[in-house]
Amino acid sequence: MTPADLPTPALVIDADAFERNLATMAAALPGGRLRPHVKAHKCTSIARAQQGVGHDTFTCATPREVVGLARAGVGDDLLLANETVDRGRLRTMAELETAVTVAVDSVETVDAAASAGIHRCLVDVNVGLPRCGVAPEAAGRLADHARHRGLEVRGVMGYEGHLMMVADRSERRERVGASMALLLLAHEQVGGDVVSAGGTGTFDLHEGTGVTEVQAGSYALMDTDYGRQELPFEQALHLVGTVISVGDGWAVADVGLKALGMDHGNPSVVGGIVWFCSDEHLTYQPGEAVQVGERVTVLPAHVDPTVAMHDVAWLVRGGEIVDRWEIDLRGW
Amino acid sequence: MTPADLPTPALVIDADAFERNLATMAAALPGGRLRPHVKAHKCTSIARAQQGVGHDTFTCATPREVVGLARAGVGDDLLLANETVDRGRLRTMAELETAVTVAVDSVETVDAAASAGIHRCLVDVNVGLPRCGVAPEAAGRLADHARHRGLEVRGVMGYEGHLMMVADRSERRERVGASMALLLLAHEQVGGDVVSAGGTGTFDLHEGTGVTEVQAGSYALMDTDYGRQELPFEQALHLVGTVISVGDGWAVADVGLKALGMDHGNPSVVGGIVWFCSDEHLTYQPGEAVQVGERVTVLPAHVDPTVAMHDVAWLVRGGEIVDRWEIDLRGW
Repeated sequence: MTPADLPTPALVIDADAFERNLATMAAALPGGRLRPHVKAHKCTSIARAQQGVGHDTFTCATPREVVGLARAGVGDDLLLANETVDRGRLRTMAELETAVTVAVDSVETVDAAASAGIHRCLVDVNVGLPRCGVAPEAAGRLADHARHRGLEVRGVMGYEGHLMMVADRSERRERVGASMALLLLAHEQVGGDVVSAGGTGTFDLHEGTGVTEVQAGSYALMDTDYGRQELPFEQALHLVGTVISVGDGWAVADVGLKALGMDHGNPSVVGGIVWFCSDEHLTYQPGEAVQVGERVTVLPAHVDPTVAMHDVAWLVRGGEIVDRWEIDLRGW
Repeated sequence: MTPADLPTPALVIDADAFERNLATMAAALPGGRLRPHVKAHKCTSIARAQQGVGHDTFTCATPREVVGLARAGVGDDLLLANETVDRGRLRTMAELETAVTVAVDSVETVDAAASAGIHRCLVDVNVGLPRCGVAPEAAGRLADHARHRGLEVRGVMGYEGHLMMVADRSERRERVGASMALLLLAHEQVGGDVVSAGGTGTFDLHEGTGVTEVQAGSYALMDTDYGRQELPFEQALHLVGTVISVGDGWAVADVGLKALGMDHGNPSVVGGIVWFCSDEHLTYQPGEAVQVGERVTVLPAHVDPTVAMHDVAWLVRGGEIVDRWEIDLRGW
């Protein structure tokens, strides 16, 4: 079977590019220096491939991702790099055989974790992105409270998400350094072995900052937004669509916004210029004449939410479909 | 159980508002004058409620929606208001017991439908939105070809999607009239009993235009984008989130962009001002102090893709959860 035989829209992974991305990252951040973020792919098979190149620790954004990985037996150290006070989900995570660590940034999140039987936490520190994370100067006090509640405090985490898309690399490096200084300040008060930070956009900017592990995820598949940066990772994911209509100066493919994360804007179409997306349509201007029934290649602007809209991804090598990977970690 | 007991993010339907929306529309466009579009909710239970107020014909955007409705025994006349040349899916639709009609706008789509055993079509006409649809002057020729291939040509459809958000109502009415004149021009050449058009934004602007049925869907649940128009429908859908972090001037809820269609921009949050969405976070400025663990109400900007990101919606009446509706028509 080839991509031309797939019902569309279909999510397709270029196996060679994907494996090169994994190898490049594993060479830069081997073993536990990378804690791959599974939110970017929500796919146990991809996590297993990441494990195959040496990473046994994983980052998750939802309890569902933690529980799915653990039940599939992938990884031996799973981090929920996000806050939750959902006692049912915390209890489910606490009962897993795999070691689970959760991020905490308040007395409430500490208490919820401790009450549910969770044993390990990282103190989540605000390093400049107005989102989760305790103020650096309050991190030590929160760690004390967590230890008082019986939690092992393994260290700190901080996500410099506001810096992922800073275009100039030297400016990005400088600002990452300033963010990590805040994280290290917190770490001095918190203690523990772990200083966890970063993402694909800053994966190689943590040398000398004291960061012990990087939480990158998008590098495995990539998207057009990260593609504009000078990163050593290739576009390994695309959508295959079918041209369903040809107008006077435009064509329409069946890859609509219900198949694409739209928060970073429109996708790109190979050999054409995108006009707009509707629920089930992509209207674009083709570079040369196309016919109804032709296949079209669409590159998403943002990989994480795009993958989360699909049940399955197809692995392609040398023009042949060689595997079918379930996107099995969707939901919450 | 109440919404406060739900794991979050959770999709919640206000049963009273939903039923008022259905009643208002059924009064304006009773029975077959409305062909409810299920792409807005992808939910058999909602379609069944629409059937309960008198609509037995339905509009679908994907084969999956057609097949799901037919297998659930909902509706007696299902329209795929979209083009496809997927022979497998066309054959599956042709084998259903329910009568299925497909939109066609090219020789290729006619031939694919006829070869797969489909019996009925509407000629899809371009009425001004650069998307699918044959040029009005070419509609008659395509109808001839469809009849030659053995298809019953039931009439025409045309979607004036570019006019749904025209803010001024009299301008909207005038431009709908001009679009429908194109559709009627095509209908004169095509023949058949059906002239199908419209959506929620233009549901009451077709009197005197010759349109026999309106394809509205969003009216049942509504969103903030349609909410800005003077429409007689209420916001019946929201998301319940949980505050998971409180910062210095902001709070974070667990309703991120993987739970929200983002193509119409950010959602709204009741009692606060949205700053930005991340994959699993909504950062907002609360109007008054909030605490971790509090519930928050989020209104999506675009209902259709939002619902498509969830497995289930919870029906609430008088503060109690009275039903759990599967979003069972997702995918393609």
